[in-house]
Amino acid sequence: MLDFTKCSVEQLMEEKQLLEKKYADYVGQKLKLDMSRGKPASTQLDLNNDILSTLETYITEDGTDARNYGVLDGLSEAKKLFSELLNIAPANMIIGGNSSLNLMYDAMTRLFLFGTEGERPWCQLDQVKFLCPSPGYDRHFAICEDLGIEMITVPMHEDGPDMDYIESLVKEDASIKGIWCVPLYSNPQGICYSDEVVERLASMKTAAKDFRIFWDNAYGVHHIYDEVKLKDIFEAARAAGNENRVYYFFSTSKITFPGAGVALIASSLSNIAEIKKHMSIQTIGHDKLNQLRTVNYFKNAEGIRTHMKKLGNELRPKFEIVLNTLEKELAGTGLLSWTKPQGGYFVAVDTLPGCAKETVRLAKEAGVVLTGAGATFPYQNDPQDRNIRIAPTYPTVEELQKAMELFCVCVKLAGVNRLLIENQ
Amino acid sequence: MLDFTKCSVEQLMEEKQLLEKKYADYVGQKLKLDMSRGKPASTQLDLNNDILSTLETYITEDGTDARNYGVLDGLSEAKKLFSELLNIAPANMIIGGNSSLNLMYDAMTRLFLFGTEGERPWCQLDQVKFLCPSPGYDRHFAICEDLGIEMITVPMHEDGPDMDYIESLVKEDASIKGIWCVPLYSNPQGICYSDEVVERLASMKTAAKDFRIFWDNAYGVHHIYDEVKLKDIFEAARAAGNENRVYYFFSTSKITFPGAGVALIASSLSNIAEIKKHMSIQTIGHDKLNQLRTVNYFKNAEGIRTHMKKLGNELRPKFEIVLNTLEKELAGTGLLSWTKPQGGYFVAVDTLPGCAKETVRLAKEAGVVLTGAGATFPYQNDPQDRNIRIAPTYPTVEELQKAMELFCVCVKLAGVNRLLIENQ
Repeated sequence: MLDFTKCSVEQLMEEKQLLEKKYADYVGQKLKLDMSRGKPASTQLDLNNDILSTLETYITEDGTDARNYGVLDGLSEAKKLFSELLNIAPANMIIGGNSSLNLMYDAMTRLFLFGTEGERPWCQLDQVKFLCPSPGYDRHFAICEDLGIEMITVPMHEDGPDMDYIESLVKEDASIKGIWCVPLYSNPQGICYSDEVVERLASMKTAAKDFRIFWDNAYGVHHIYDEVKLKDIFEAARAAGNENRVYYFFSTSKITFPGAGVALIASSLSNIAEIKKHMSIQTIGHDKLNQLRTVNYFKNAEGIRTHMKKLGNELRPKFEIVLNTLEKELAGTGLLSWTKPQGGYFVAVDTLPGCAKETVRLAKEAGVVLTGAGATFPYQNDPQDRNIRIAPTYPTVEELQKAMELFCVCVKLAGVNRLLIENQ
Repeated sequence: MLDFTKCSVEQLMEEKQLLEKKYADYVGQKLKLDMSRGKPASTQLDLNNDILSTLETYITEDGTDARNYGVLDGLSEAKKLFSELLNIAPANMIIGGNSSLNLMYDAMTRLFLFGTEGERPWCQLDQVKFLCPSPGYDRHFAICEDLGIEMITVPMHEDGPDMDYIESLVKEDASIKGIWCVPLYSNPQGICYSDEVVERLASMKTAAKDFRIFWDNAYGVHHIYDEVKLKDIFEAARAAGNENRVYYFFSTSKITFPGAGVALIASSLSNIAEIKKHMSIQTIGHDKLNQLRTVNYFKNAEGIRTHMKKLGNELRPKFEIVLNTLEKELAGTGLLSWTKPQGGYFVAVDTLPGCAKETVRLAKEAGVVLTGAGATFPYQNDPQDRNIRIAPTYPTVEELQKAMELFCVCVKLAGVNRLLIENQ
C-alpha cells in the first residue's frame, strides 16, 4: 500500500486528482446515512420484541402490586437479576428509570446540592474539576459543561487512562473531585481497563476526600469477540478503604430498548443510603412494570448472556466491515490508525493531525453524517484534530459498507490535502 | 346528636367509659388497614389492565421507532392527547417519565443550580422561601425541606389560599421565590381554586423577579361528583405579563397506574426552552413505549374523560362511606369538621385543637394506619394539631366502612379526653 506520508508532491497531486474523482462519484450517489450516534439498528431491536408482550403478571415475587406506588429502589427480582449478572449485592443497588445517563446526572447534581459524607456541597466551592479520559463519551463531558465543572483531559493508553498522570494530579489538587470512566469497551475506543488500572483508580491517594469515580459500565456485557473480564472495582476500593469512592452505572438500554430499558446505580451501602434519602423526595418510585417485563423476559443472568451473544452476532459483521474496509483501504498509508475493539459500540480512528474535522465535513457533504469531530474531547476540542468516532450499529450492512468506502476516500482526500499544504 | 363541647364533666366521664369499651372492641378485632397514602385500590387499577396489552406498534405517527433513543420532549401523539385534555399547546409541554413529582423536584433543583431568566441560581442565595398553602401535600413540603427552603404556611380558605396574605408577603420579600398549589380538588381538602384566586396568583406583584408557581394539577380530571372548572392560569399569567411564572404539572399516575404512568411539565415557551437545555444533558429521552401505550389505550381526550367517569364510579361509594359515617357519628358533636370534596383523592378533617395526633395514635393502635397527623403542614407541624387526611381509595368498601367507624370512635375518645382535661 502506498505510504502517502512518504510521497513526493507530484505523487500526492496525482492521488488527489484520483481521489477527487472518486469523491465526486459518491456525491453523485446522494447517500443519506446517519452514523452519528451509537444507536442500535431496528433489526437488532427486533430481537427483543417479545419483551413487549411478556408481562404475565403485575404481582411481584413478594406480593407487591407493581402497578401501584412504592418500592423506591426497585423490585427484588430485578435486583436479583442484575446482582447475578454484575456480581453486585442487591443491597448495593438502586434500580432506576430508563436512563443511566439520568442516574449519572442526578448523582452529580446531588453532589452539587448536598455534598457527600459531610463534605461541602460542590455548588459552594469556587472550583470543581473532573478528570476526563479522552477520547471519551461526549454526554459525560456535557454534564460537566452544564454544571460548570472544569474538565481535565487525560490521555488514554491501551490499558485505560494514563494512571501516572492521574495519580500526580489527584494527590495534589483537592478541587479535582472525580473522574469519568467507561471501563469496558470504552466509548469510543473500545479500550478495556487493565486490572492494574482498576486497582490504581480504587486505591490512589486523592486530596479530595469526596473524590468520586463515575464508573459507567455501559458495555459491561457487550462482548462481540472474546469476553474481556473487568476487575471488580468495588472489591478493590473496599480493600483500599475507599469503598465510598465508586458510583457504578449500568443499563439495559443497549440490551433491550434504548428508549425503554432499565438503568441502575450501585455503590457502597453508605452511599446508597445517602442517595435514597434524596431520591425518596424526588420520586415515589420508578417504573416497576418495566422492571418486571425485563425480568420476565430474561429470567436470569444466563438469559441476558445468551441474548448478548445474539446481539454480538448481529454486530460482528458490522464491526468487520469497518475494520476490513479500513485495513483494505488505509493500512500502510500512514493516514489513519484505529483500534480493534473486542466489544462495545464503536471504533475510534485517528487521522493525521488536523484532518478529523475536514474528513467529517467531506463525509457529511457526501451524505454520511458521522459523530462531530472533537465530540470525543472535553469542550468538543480535540487538540490535534485527529479523533473520529465510527458508530457502525445503526446502518444496514450494505449501507455501512458503502459509508465506510466513502469514509476511506474522505480520510485519504483530507490527508493528501494536508500533506500538500505541509509540503508547500 | 350530643354536643360534647357543651357536656358536663359527669356526662363526658360517662361517654368516655362507653367509648373506651367500643374502642377496646375494635382493638380486639385486630384490624390491619393502611389508609396512610392516596393509593388506588387494585380494583381501580384493574380497570386499566388493557393498557398492558395494547401496544400494537412501536412506530409513531411521524415514523419514529419508539424503541430507540431520542425525542427528548415526548412523542407528538402524546402531546396531542394531553393538549386536547388540558388545553395547553403541545409546544408548551414536555412529556416526562412516570412521575410528576420527579419533574417538580428536577424543576426545583434546576432553579437551585442554574437559576432562571438570568437571575442568580437559588443555591447562591442566603435564603429561599416558599409559600405553602396548608393543609397541603406532604411531598411538596418534603422537597422544600430537602433543599433547605424555608416554608411559610399560608391558610386555606374555601376558594383557595389566603390571597390577601400572599399578596402582602410576596410584594415585600424578594426571598419568597414561589408557591406550591394543587388548584383542583386540593390535597387534602379537595378545595378548588376560584377564578379570582387563579387570577390574583397569576397577576400579583412579586418582589422576586423569578417567582414561580408550582401548579400541580394532579387531580385535574379527577371529578367524582359534578365537574368543577378551573380557570386557565396560563391565560391569566400571559394577560398579566407573567407568562414565565407558572410551571404546570400533570400525570396519569392516578389515571392509569401510579407506578407506570406518564407525567408532563408545561410552561411558557421560554421556560420550556430553558428546561430542555438542561434536560437534554440529563437524559436522551423518557420512555416512549409507555407514552405510546397510553395514547393507544385512550385514543383521545374523550377516552380519558370516559375512563375518569369509571374511576369516579369506583371512588364515589368510598367517599360516601367517609362522608356518611362522619355525618352519622360526628355531626353536631362539636368534635369534628370536614370538607366535602367534589373530586380528588382525599377528605380532610379538623378535630378539636390538640386532638389530631391522639386520634391518629388511637387508630393506629387499633390497626388502622392514617396519614401521620401534622403531615399536611410544613415541617410536619400542624400548629393547632387538628388536621387529619383521610385517604379512602385503597381499602375495599367493607374495610373502609369498618375503618371509618373506628375512626369516629377515636375522634370522640380523643375529643372527650381533651375536653375533660380542659374542664379540670
